[in-house]
Amino acid sequence: SLHRIKASGLKLQLCTNETQATRENFVRKLRAMGFDISVAEVTAPAPAACHLLKERGLRPHLLVHDDLVPEFAEINKTNPNCVVLGDAAENFTYANLNEAFRLLIGMEKPVLISLGKGRYYKETDGLKLDVGAYMKALEYACDVQAEVVGKPAKRFFESALAELGVPPEQAIMIGDDIVSDVGGAQQCGMRALQVRTGKFRPADENHPVVKPDAYVNNLAEAVDIILQQL
Amino acid sequence: SLHRIKASGLKLQLCTNETQATRENFVRKLRAMGFDISVAEVTAPAPAACHLLKERGLRPHLLVHDDLVPEFAEINKTNPNCVVLGDAAENFTYANLNEAFRLLIGMEKPVLISLGKGRYYKETDGLKLDVGAYMKALEYACDVQAEVVGKPAKRFFESALAELGVPPEQAIMIGDDIVSDVGGAQQCGMRALQVRTGKFRPADENHPVVKPDAYVNNLAEAVDIILQQL
Repeated sequence: SLHRIKASGLKLQLCTNETQATRENFVRKLRAMGFDISVAEVTAPAPAACHLLKERGLRPHLLVHDDLVPEFAEINKTNPNCVVLGDAAENFTYANLNEAFRLLIGMEKPVLISLGKGRYYKETDGLKLDVGAYMKALEYACDVQAEVVGKPAKRFFESALAELGVPPEQAIMIGDDIVSDVGGAQQCGMRALQVRTGKFRPADENHPVVKPDAYVNNLAEAVDIILQQL
Repeated sequence: SLHRIKASGLKLQLCTNETQATRENFVRKLRAMGFDISVAEVTAPAPAACHLLKERGLRPHLLVHDDLVPEFAEINKTNPNCVVLGDAAENFTYANLNEAFRLLIGMEKPVLISLGKGRYYKETDGLKLDVGAYMKALEYACDVQAEVVGKPAKRFFESALAELGVPPEQAIMIGDDIVSDVGGAQQCGMRALQVRTGKFRPADENHPVVKPDAYVNNLAEAVDIILQQL
């Protein structure tokens, strides 16, 4: 399906909330599976966070997965004045959470940047709490509201559109998550299709707030429909 | 001050949100400091939770401090149908949080009982996230609302009053926490004094919701005032 999109001359950007690996490693994994994707074709929360940190002169304390740390290589992290939270997985220890909390509560105005707000996800060995749960813990303890830079944040989709160089009305989002993918893209002015694969659940078709522009059975069908309308 | 209260013939109950130790150990520590206190004079979240568990036929999975486990000795914990959350401290590991989460999300209607909702507390080695932060994480991940059995829950003060055998209008709460102590007791129909020691902060005197019946500089002054009015 990706090959057909590219062959048609349409531009393509992958929007992922992956925060357990650098884009380089993410792309390496996809290429090993046979997908013809480059790093520039991937929009992910960590680079979006770096952009925001530079823009505002913020020096982060990182509570993220070890494999994500290289994304922040060029960022000044001395004497931190904010906390960046990702899906730290095994790094979500009692000690690390207390450390991030102490830094935040010690700031005159705590700044908490979260690379997503997912509730949980599934791995081969079972369900895991996602970054959103730990974000809520720190928000409550410090009485702050986190700034979320991953999907469904509007700025995240704007950054993907900037990368593509197209206005939102000329772009279409295809995703399996009714809120993060479909809702987020629509709030940014894009159209959005929900695939009935992956995270999709039948209850999504009755979502109280988000209505996709269409449902499709899978990515291949989404591409069929888009290419037919060219 | 405690001695003077008891000598006057007034009844006394200590209301604590301590969930890192059994009442037995808590009382042992106080007695070692010279306080003449018995276990029956202590109302704490764990026994309140046990009462609730028995009443509703709930079998808990415990995510609590090791030292608190004996409080649940008589409770059936096989095949759990709820999660009881305390200030587990070092037991707040990534693995233990995921385990509690998986049990909750696997229930048709998740039941989360929290032994408090404190944001943080101070120990000699610094500030620590309290049970409330972890409660928020699990609430968000499972889309449930926890039932809080510690202060300021109304049922907690009711259970202390039942222990004393007096109606709320004949009881007075003395505490340093404007919300948990003063607000909770007042919601239960008691009067409440805030001491200007411990957790007290000057900003408490402008609290938007809770107004103590009076402020006192310390516990000794509170006892002076109460005994004068007998």
